[in-house]
Amino acid sequence: MPAKLKTAVLGATGYSGLELTRLLLRHPRLEKPALFRRQSDTEAVCDLADMFPVLSGNGSYPLQPLSWASLQQQNVELLFLATPHEASRSLVPEAIAQGLRVIDLSGAWRLKQAQNRAVYGFEDADSVTAADLTNKAVYGLPELSRDQIPSAALVANPGCYATSVILALAPLLKAGVVDRQHGIISDSKSGVSGAGKEPNSRTHFVSVADNLSAYSVFGHRHVGEMLEQLQLDASELIFTPHLLPIPRGIFSTIYVHLNREMKASEVESCFRDFYAGGRWVRIFATPKLPQIQFSLHTNYCDLGFCLADDGRRLVLVSCVDNMLKGAAGQAVQNMNLMYGWKEEEGLE
Amino acid sequence: MPAKLKTAVLGATGYSGLELTRLLLRHPRLEKPALFRRQSDTEAVCDLADMFPVLSGNGSYPLQPLSWASLQQQNVELLFLATPHEASRSLVPEAIAQGLRVIDLSGAWRLKQAQNRAVYGFEDADSVTAADLTNKAVYGLPELSRDQIPSAALVANPGCYATSVILALAPLLKAGVVDRQHGIISDSKSGVSGAGKEPNSRTHFVSVADNLSAYSVFGHRHVGEMLEQLQLDASELIFTPHLLPIPRGIFSTIYVHLNREMKASEVESCFRDFYAGGRWVRIFATPKLPQIQFSLHTNYCDLGFCLADDGRRLVLVSCVDNMLKGAAGQAVQNMNLMYGWKEEEGLE
Amino acid sequence: MPAKLKTAVLGATGYSGLELTRLLLRHPRLEKPALFRRQSDTEAVCDLADMFPVLSGNGSYPLQPLSWASLQQQNVELLFLATPHEASRSLVPEAIAQGLRVIDLSGAWRLKQAQNRAVYGFEDADSVTAADLTNKAVYGLPELSRDQIPSAALVANPGCYATSVILALAPLLKAGVVDRQHGIISDSKSGVSGAGKEPNSRTHFVSVADNLSAYSVFGHRHVGEMLEQLQLDASELIFTPHLLPIPRGIFSTIYVHLNREMKASEVESCFRDFYAGGRWVRIFATPKLPQIQFSLHTNYCDLGFCLADDGRRLVLVSCVDNMLKGAAGQAVQNMNLMYGWKEEEGLE
Amino acid sequence: MPAKLKTAVLGATGYSGLELTRLLLRHPRLEKPALFRRQSDTEAVCDLADMFPVLSGNGSYPLQPLSWASLQQQNVELLFLATPHEASRSLVPEAIAQGLRVIDLSGAWRLKQAQNRAVYGFEDADSVTAADLTNKAVYGLPELSRDQIPSAALVANPGCYATSVILALAPLLKAGVVDRQHGIISDSKSGVSGAGKEPNSRTHFVSVADNLSAYSVFGHRHVGEMLEQLQLDASELIFTPHLLPIPRGIFSTIYVHLNREMKASEVESCFRDFYAGGRWVRIFATPKLPQIQFSLHTNYCDLGFCLADDGRRLVLVSCVDNMLKGAAGQAVQNMNLMYGWKEEEGLE
Repeated sequence: MPAKLKTAVLGATGYSGLELTRLLLRHPRLEKPALFRRQSDTEAVCDLADMFPVLSGNGSYPLQPLSWASLQQQNVELLFLATPHEASRSLVPEAIAQGLRVIDLSGAWRLKQAQNRAVYGFEDADSVTAADLTNKAVYGLPELSRDQIPSAALVANPGCYATSVILALAPLLKAGVVDRQHGIISDSKSGVSGAGKEPNSRTHFVSVADNLSAYSVFGHRHVGEMLEQLQLDASELIFTPHLLPIPRGIFSTIYVHLNREMKASEVESCFRDFYAGGRWVRIFATPKLPQIQFSLHTNYCDLGFCLADDGRRLVLVSCVDNMLKGAAGQAVQNMNLMYGWKEEEGLE
Repeated sequence: MPAKLKTAVLGATGYSGLELTRLLLRHPRLEKPALFRRQSDTEAVCDLADMFPVLSGNGSYPLQPLSWASLQQQNVELLFLATPHEASRSLVPEAIAQGLRVIDLSGAWRLKQAQNRAVYGFEDADSVTAADLTNKAVYGLPELSRDQIPSAALVANPGCYATSVILALAPLLKAGVVDRQHGIISDSKSGVSGAGKEPNSRTHFVSVADNLSAYSVFGHRHVGEMLEQLQLDASELIFTPHLLPIPRGIFSTIYVHLNREMKASEVESCFRDFYAGGRWVRIFATPKLPQIQFSLHTNYCDLGFCLADDGRRLVLVSCVDNMLKGAAGQAVQNMNLMYGWKEEEGLE
Repeated sequence: MPAKLKTAVLGATGYSGLELTRLLLRHPRLEKPALFRRQSDTEAVCDLADMFPVLSGNGSYPLQPLSWASLQQQNVELLFLATPHEASRSLVPEAIAQGLRVIDLSGAWRLKQAQNRAVYGFEDADSVTAADLTNKAVYGLPELSRDQIPSAALVANPGCYATSVILALAPLLKAGVVDRQHGIISDSKSGVSGAGKEPNSRTHFVSVADNLSAYSVFGHRHVGEMLEQLQLDASELIFTPHLLPIPRGIFSTIYVHLNREMKASEVESCFRDFYAGGRWVRIFATPKLPQIQFSLHTNYCDLGFCLADDGRRLVLVSCVDNMLKGAAGQAVQNMNLMYGWKEEEGLE
Repeated sequence: MPAKLKTAVLGATGYSGLELTRLLLRHPRLEKPALFRRQSDTEAVCDLADMFPVLSGNGSYPLQPLSWASLQQQNVELLFLATPHEASRSLVPEAIAQGLRVIDLSGAWRLKQAQNRAVYGFEDADSVTAADLTNKAVYGLPELSRDQIPSAALVANPGCYATSVILALAPLLKAGVVDRQHGIISDSKSGVSGAGKEPNSRTHFVSVADNLSAYSVFGHRHVGEMLEQLQLDASELIFTPHLLPIPRGIFSTIYVHLNREMKASEVESCFRDFYAGGRWVRIFATPKLPQIQFSLHTNYCDLGFCLADDGRRLVLVSCVDNMLKGAAGQAVQNMNLMYGWKEEEGLE
């Protein structure tokens, strides 16, 4: 058996970071990951199991303050960042300079176009290093970039909404059957963990329970990823996110006009062909449709569709677990590709 | 003070029937309503408070088996039907023949066009009486038919989804600013009480909780009402209902292309003008949007919108409580109009 | 018709304060209440309807900074405080000095015994005025203090847990049938609004959903009220609160040993006799038991019980809506008593 | 590597059966399990993945009608029954006669005492075989019967409530520190999957959401197991189950009087000593307490406690996932013991 890989996680106390840590702990190819917290992190948690009793009963999970020397001493080769995007933007250049490979779960390195990065507040006048890294970063959606990920030094792990929308639309757009000028609509709904761990009036139980709300209409940060990956103009996609009264899961209902009349079997073939050989996309044969429960606690993206009698109007349904295929699971899938392992290792 | 009106409810044990009964019990213009159950109803409930402890503590609510003689003896003038549509279809002709006025909460009398009624399984070869009543029945959406309801003998109370969609679209369609050919999409989400009281695998708690699902895509029964009331062709509207993990409330996200560039203020004026003087529609000034919680336990339909920078793509949000503005509350509003009372009587 | 009473609410933006404001707005004996915010309140909300869209559509609700002069100018006679207990403790003496009557929803004035007040951090060395007011304050549980409330200048509105526990136990304790030495246990469960509006990690949706937790075991602040009102020693009552994944409602399961063998009919009579003539307590005949849903959105306290075959071991169930009978509804009930109105005015 | 064990599941379409099947599918010591349905089962499901899309994407799961010949042909050695207790009672004698080992997840074989079996409707005049099997069946709570399970032919897998209560009380009772005469109370709360998959008015989403209810007070079927395993008299234990608005998880709050004054450290030691070396019980150091979320989707039973200042009154908290440690996970743990594997195999 080959030597096991040493990884590290920075930001294991957030929702995605914790989920990622749990996946890494049981991954058969890995040593126990080193866990770091940012120096500025005032929560002086010393052991992750103290903060998350769900982890207890199976050893200790010490959290170390981040130091490059410490990473070197522990022979870390791969660093996962589950940090706010500003932190990722400032930390990654040094990490790469230190010879680490990086999978970043934030939005810091996902976008090639300046106007899309502007939404995150990243200056045009980036450093040369940052500009260079922006170009070299690989958008880590394995089903679309399976060729580029193995050799990447920096993988930008996709956003959860973006994963659900891009995987639903890519096969049809690549096949050239979408009437793009007509406009595509993604009406997406997400569980609350997608809104992050910070307590605020929006995430208070009483605000969310027995409720549904829409937010960031015509202005969500994930739209840039969708446009870049799908090569769409901003005018060609409307994305409307909603907050569901559930802890986790994303459901996107996507409306597409086809530019020619199609049969349901053709649509299904388009999806099956595109994802042939892939492990983590499931195609539902019409009239069956995915539901959030089906993909929960799995790394699957579930895709289904209904075609109108006219053969032109198409409703797609795409479901992912925002913590897994939408974040931590996809990060592990990317790691598997980077090290030449099967895409399902540690994810079943 | 004028004499109080005597009403009766058939079907008080369903979700809408119970909510209606509670409203009628506290309505200042009404005597205590008579409560009937269908002869075929094998649940031998004798008192509604036995079945619904929420009603207890304030007198008894005896349920009588339905008999026309009994209705006459009790001087009932107005009969509410909260029965399955087949039962309503067979009972209403006799009720009208008995000289009663009727507000029917089912889908039995909402549709003028045979192809839309076919969805409910009503034969083309209806009796003469049924055909006649179908023509005379008034679709009871007060904001659209305020003139016809006062003199109606039979009011067909709208469906809950239909209420939310029609009220959102009527102002824009009447103003002629919608690009109808482009197609309108209503992505609607409903709480579980909208699916009725019958226990089945879809309404089991474990099936609904932590979940979201779409159903009846391109085939929901309420679409016929929407098309007829909005004078749209079937090809001009896509309606996708979803089941939310909440007990009550409807949220419709509606996508419209305008046929000319508009400003947000113009859109808002279009809504405010259309609903001027109305009591039960609230317009939210952009960028504020309705949420399900805001209209819960009220008779309001809440409307809001976001307009894209291009002034052409419009996202509407429409919320109603499916039990109130979507059913029982609207029935009371209709009664108020039928008897010349203020629309808000008994609903505040 | 007599002149209407002018009331004011300080703290209308909290959960209880908002619920109270809604009740006062529709109370037939009242003018529209004046709404105040504390000077220190940095949220510069000018109109309550801006903060709570649920209120909009029916006029404006301006929030004024608190000033005694302003209260006088508006002829306010009765002031409701829905403020933190520290604020109530410092404001009430001045309010009373200004000649106002006060109903305080906080825990500031509920406790006569110094060791119980200590839990709230109130110094033994209280001012003379505070000590005097502490003695004069009437604990506003109408079913127990119906005689004292009408003439009270200061009513201390009970806590929500305390209401549910005291009302369940008072009839049995007064009848002398409880084996007090054996110990009484109240295992109570509350919806999240009982934990207040402040967002924190405990009230985050993801922390509460799909969960149940116990807290403040052997140390909850409401225990002092229970002991004082029921005249129990601390060793005679165990109270264990739990946080339920629901927005509102309290359910207490209470375990009592009887000091003599009783029949179920005797137990039921004990309850019915004690609450005879009362409007807001419902007794369930065994084996029926209250559920949270039954009392939600009402001012009822629902009581039920199961008696073991041995006639000695008794399980009581007590449910209240923590926002109504547990806070705002009870405050209105107290007001009704203070002004000689029926206890149900404005509450049905 | 040794040959893998061939198992079979009868009743894979219920909640516990499905969860069990998922565990068996990924257990490293097992061949893919054979899945059977009862002949009487009218649901003609041919493939489990058709019924449960959550399973799809990873091969097929054909469901065969039960036949002993077929079990033999497939070399099944161990049969899991996830069937109603009546079915288990009639099937097990034949299965044992066929030389199979059996783990039964129902209540059919858990009880040694006739009066406890009577609750399930099993006649005193059982067949000789049934009486013999009743005696030989081992109650499969590994933490208590680790010695008997390895050689058992028939393991009666404990009930979910019983697991949570017995594991909390066994250490203290064995240590002889409980004042049994004073009486023990378990106030237990369960998610809805514990109530089974059958849709009825109690499991309808609208009945459960925003609610809490108690049921079967002084009369739940699981009490017999608790009494037998803990060697308590019926008068020494009150068990009150409640239905929580969550899909899964059990939380028991247990009240115990100690017969001598103890320190918290002694109580903790009592638990730690009893469960020393065990893998699936976690002891929380006071004042930390388990919550339902911590044990969800794990096979842990989490135990915590609070001791009153008097050192005599003790509140225990016990949490299990009713589908795992309360059913399917425990069944796998029992299998591991029966075949000499580590208790955690296939459960991490």
